[in-house]
Amino acid sequence: MKITLINFFILSLISFTHASVVDFCVADYKAPNGPAGYSCKKPSTVTVDDFVYHGLSISGNTSNIINAAVSPAFDAQFPGVNGLGISIARLDLAVNGVIPLHTHPGASEILVVVQGTICAGFVASDNTVYLKTLQKGDIMVFPQGLLHFQVNGGGSTALAFVSFSSANPGLQILDFALFKSDFPTPLIVQTTFIDAAVVKKLKGVLGGSG
Amino acid sequence: MKITLINFFILSLISFTHASVVDFCVADYKAPNGPAGYSCKKPSTVTVDDFVYHGLSISGNTSNIINAAVSPAFDAQFPGVNGLGISIARLDLAVNGVIPLHTHPGASEILVVVQGTICAGFVASDNTVYLKTLQKGDIMVFPQGLLHFQVNGGGSTALAFVSFSSANPGLQILDFALFKSDFPTPLIVQTTFIDAAVVKKLKGVLGGSG
Amino acid sequence: MKITLINFFILSLISFTHASVVDFCVADYKAPNGPAGYSCKKPSTVTVDDFVYHGLSISGNTSNIINAAVSPAFDAQFPGVNGLGISIARLDLAVNGVIPLHTHPGASEILVVVQGTICAGFVASDNTVYLKTLQKGDIMVFPQGLLHFQVNGGGSTALAFVSFSSANPGLQILDFALFKSDFPTPLIVQTTFIDAAVVKKLKGVLGGSG
Amino acid sequence: MKITLINFFILSLISFTHASVVDFCVADYKAPNGPAGYSCKKPSTVTVDDFVYHGLSISGNTSNIINAAVSPAFDAQFPGVNGLGISIARLDLAVNGVIPLHTHPGASEILVVVQGTICAGFVASDNTVYLKTLQKGDIMVFPQGLLHFQVNGGGSTALAFVSFSSANPGLQILDFALFKSDFPTPLIVQTTFIDAAVVKKLKGVLGGSG
Amino acid sequence: MKITLINFFILSLISFTHASVVDFCVADYKAPNGPAGYSCKKPSTVTVDDFVYHGLSISGNTSNIINAAVSPAFDAQFPGVNGLGISIARLDLAVNGVIPLHTHPGASEILVVVQGTICAGFVASDNTVYLKTLQKGDIMVFPQGLLHFQVNGGGSTALAFVSFSSANPGLQILDFALFKSDFPTPLIVQTTFIDAAVVKKLKGVLGGSG
Amino acid sequence: MKITLINFFILSLISFTHASVVDFCVADYKAPNGPAGYSCKKPSTVTVDDFVYHGLSISGNTSNIINAAVSPAFDAQFPGVNGLGISIARLDLAVNGVIPLHTHPGASEILVVVQGTICAGFVASDNTVYLKTLQKGDIMVFPQGLLHFQVNGGGSTALAFVSFSSANPGLQILDFALFKSDFPTPLIVQTTFIDAAVVKKLKGVLGGSG
Repeated sequence: MKITLINFFILSLISFTHASVVDFCVADYKAPNGPAGYSCKKPSTVTVDDFVYHGLSISGNTSNIINAAVSPAFDAQFPGVNGLGISIARLDLAVNGVIPLHTHPGASEILVVVQGTICAGFVASDNTVYLKTLQKGDIMVFPQGLLHFQVNGGGSTALAFVSFSSANPGLQILDFALFKSDFPTPLIVQTTFIDAAVVKKLKGVLGGSG
Repeated sequence: MKITLINFFILSLISFTHASVVDFCVADYKAPNGPAGYSCKKPSTVTVDDFVYHGLSISGNTSNIINAAVSPAFDAQFPGVNGLGISIARLDLAVNGVIPLHTHPGASEILVVVQGTICAGFVASDNTVYLKTLQKGDIMVFPQGLLHFQVNGGGSTALAFVSFSSANPGLQILDFALFKSDFPTPLIVQTTFIDAAVVKKLKGVLGGSG
Repeated sequence: MKITLINFFILSLISFTHASVVDFCVADYKAPNGPAGYSCKKPSTVTVDDFVYHGLSISGNTSNIINAAVSPAFDAQFPGVNGLGISIARLDLAVNGVIPLHTHPGASEILVVVQGTICAGFVASDNTVYLKTLQKGDIMVFPQGLLHFQVNGGGSTALAFVSFSSANPGLQILDFALFKSDFPTPLIVQTTFIDAAVVKKLKGVLGGSG
Repeated sequence: MKITLINFFILSLISFTHASVVDFCVADYKAPNGPAGYSCKKPSTVTVDDFVYHGLSISGNTSNIINAAVSPAFDAQFPGVNGLGISIARLDLAVNGVIPLHTHPGASEILVVVQGTICAGFVASDNTVYLKTLQKGDIMVFPQGLLHFQVNGGGSTALAFVSFSSANPGLQILDFALFKSDFPTPLIVQTTFIDAAVVKKLKGVLGGSG
Repeated sequence: MKITLINFFILSLISFTHASVVDFCVADYKAPNGPAGYSCKKPSTVTVDDFVYHGLSISGNTSNIINAAVSPAFDAQFPGVNGLGISIARLDLAVNGVIPLHTHPGASEILVVVQGTICAGFVASDNTVYLKTLQKGDIMVFPQGLLHFQVNGGGSTALAFVSFSSANPGLQILDFALFKSDFPTPLIVQTTFIDAAVVKKLKGVLGGSG
Repeated sequence: MKITLINFFILSLISFTHASVVDFCVADYKAPNGPAGYSCKKPSTVTVDDFVYHGLSISGNTSNIINAAVSPAFDAQFPGVNGLGISIARLDLAVNGVIPLHTHPGASEILVVVQGTICAGFVASDNTVYLKTLQKGDIMVFPQGLLHFQVNGGGSTALAFVSFSSANPGLQILDFALFKSDFPTPLIVQTTFIDAAVVKKLKGVLGGSG
């Protein structure tokens, strides 16, 4: 190989690599977003720190009535996952901790137990309930959009990571939708058959109105 | 144009059309199904009746406690929509009729009011409630996977058609998931904060156990 | 439950709900659009009226040579469907009304007859023609991209709603593509075998040139 | 590195590679097909010949009234493209050759001219006509589902390859849909405004009935 | 509420729930698979154990030359993820453990460090290298199809879970593709510029031929 | 037909065509891009030249050490393919020309040989190597994300066109990723088992550092 040829080589392949810089689309939170996610940062401003997230390395604060915390790394928090069809969150469950019944409208979920014991379950459209007590290292999958929950199933703190099949899975917590909102109580009663007194009590606890 | 050329034409284009018979995939309910839907019927057995569905032409029976009926034409009922990313259902709402709070895990929905008045709403992930009273001819869209409902908003029978962005949108009715299932009552209480007495009462009405 | 705990609860879950505001992407017609649709309006500016459309509640004007009207609620008209993979349109067919042969390049379609009788059909790639006379309440599906039509099949006004598996199904009316355009007549003749005189006559009627 | 370690290495990684054999899904034409394509051949029966296709290496027969031939390598002909979202076809255009106006319901298309001159065009939904005379090496893209055509634009044989964004793009030739089918002539007249005499004449040439 | 009405209610809604049993598609390994995944087990045979996987609860065997192990829970191992667009694997890295340079042709990946320290990196199409040393609880995302690796970055055993945006992400280990295959040595030399002697030596270690 | 009706016709259908202008999304390189591609140019500024590309009509410069050139027409070069799921490139292979081992992270590829003889191959995840010598007119498909190569297999110049199942397939050349980057040599050695001396030599040739 002669040095002169090497120069030709490098020059002639510039166009070759010109097209291929868009393997990813790191979120630019200041530009418009669309149905597929956020606009992309200029490639020249992307660094490895866009692909790394430290926010899940510390325990969430579980000093609350659910004795639990969820810490998401969705595209709104973690710009590197934008457009890649995947995201993750951390679940901390103190003793008696509960992640209340909820859905992810836009993604399926896989849970892996890292510490402790977790009892988890989901309900299918035919009203079958799938329940399991999971030990450290166990995996469970929750199909997209179905109601599911996780509760601490043991006597010590539990920790899990949950991954999603979307960078923006969404999260609808049943109790919050009903009782931490301004959903009019008569309509809740009418569409859930739950007594008005119960609705009002739970709205009182969770801060709902209407 | 000479007749001899016409023969050439017809013959030579046989291979041209050979590749193009698979514009659709009418469901073959007897063969295996997969994540994308049902297997396809042999093209030679497909008729126009696979693409037409009469099941929504009559009113659903609303003589029940919700005074309402939902009649689906999903891929399980209507073989022609298999794989086409669309389906439809009919909503009949007698006076005081209610389609209880529910989600479609796999599709967004558009409702069109054909008769009467319907009050409809959905709850977003941030717990904002979007409510509207709809008149004949009005359209409302419900984004995928979010809790929503429809109730008769007038003094006469209401009729609507709802279309879905999937041939298999799924359907999870909140009350059925909780109270018409064998979801253990203690777990429901723990993950919804609804009193056990209320859970048990609703299970009694709807036929749940556990 | 103590009130102090409730405060912890509400505070600790703020991050929990922070990620989940993007269940939908209401079209912002002033920002750039992309292959997946329009940019999203800021969530704080979204109201229920973005998800409701009144434009289909009145009959389209059928005083024209086709005795028919199509009123779309695609993403260009109805901002709430942007990115949700679904849209809808209204078909009004006066007596002798005709929705001429057309395709939707980007979506399959389901039609439901709300009033009157409609004769509808589509042609598959293998040149099989699927025809059906539909009564009130009947449903028919038209697979993506295939030529299809609807004509009033009775003696009174007909009304139908058509839903699409895309927020932007597109619409190519055969006669308009050929005869209401500046498609050069010699090229039309060459690629359709229709006589030049016929092409010129139809261009005269429909306003084409070339 | 010791040889004993190498053995461990090879053994321990067997499970590592076990999951990864499904990079492709070569069509098994004897098993059921579904909306996503054909069933997959057993991996053990796949050979390089499943990924190679010789059928486009010879000229199509252009001794016909369109003086042209289309030779497809879609998933129905070329098993290796099944499920991969791409396919290809060969266009042979003798002098005066014409690929008549047609659509691909399920794919966009890129054409590359390999020999000769080709005049190509497509019509958009807004009835704008995009026309271009292409020389050897020129590329043109035809968006999904729109009417388009190719004609020989020079005095010698032309050759092109066209690629598609689907393994099963479909193909609907306008003239065949109308005039080589049993589409009832009155309905054609009603939905296209083309005179019955013209319809009948073209049906006579192309072999249609009705 | 009267008991007689309850019976009506339950009866009339049977058709309501009939359509909604296909929230998931648990893999049936004995039926044909297709581009979208495996065929679905009959719903009546599905149990919670289809959605739970215990195989990642024990450490992989790291007594090998890479001092590491990868244990996948892809659709081939874990039937519940079939068609859900997500899967997971466990990485065990003993001291000096290395997951060699590899790609996943069909998925992006998120890694979470559960124990120890991991140095990870990927190379983009423009040849930029993104490297990071990750501590316990740190997250890193690897965009689809790009070369990446993980090595133990500390003095003790490291453990991580990696999730994928597909139930079947695929896995191509660079060294195995080149040196544990029958890729002819002259072609490897020609297409990588690596000396034949090096190729032969590595084939000797890894068991390649040709 | 009376002229007055024609006016009604034209007027009444304006709304009909209003929704249908977005069959395509020609790239606007000055607006933000997102995960689905570039923003769209305003329809009024689109011309046929956006859909035509001349850049592949001339031979690439093969006076380099690989005796080959790749000329892409991806969305970064060819604005008309933006969002359409397809793109194309030209391969020029002088005698002894080599397209080195590479992957496309985001697309499958079909190659058609237009001139000369090409030996091509890919390696599957199970390390099976699929090799074939292709003649003029032969087609070969390379599944998404897998390592593959093309070399001139004859004594004369070879020419091929390669199409992709994405407008932005990406391109990762193995040698460039390793040896034309700043990938630290010790990490390359650790994750590929290639000797440091070889790595350094190739970095010297290709311009890598670290």
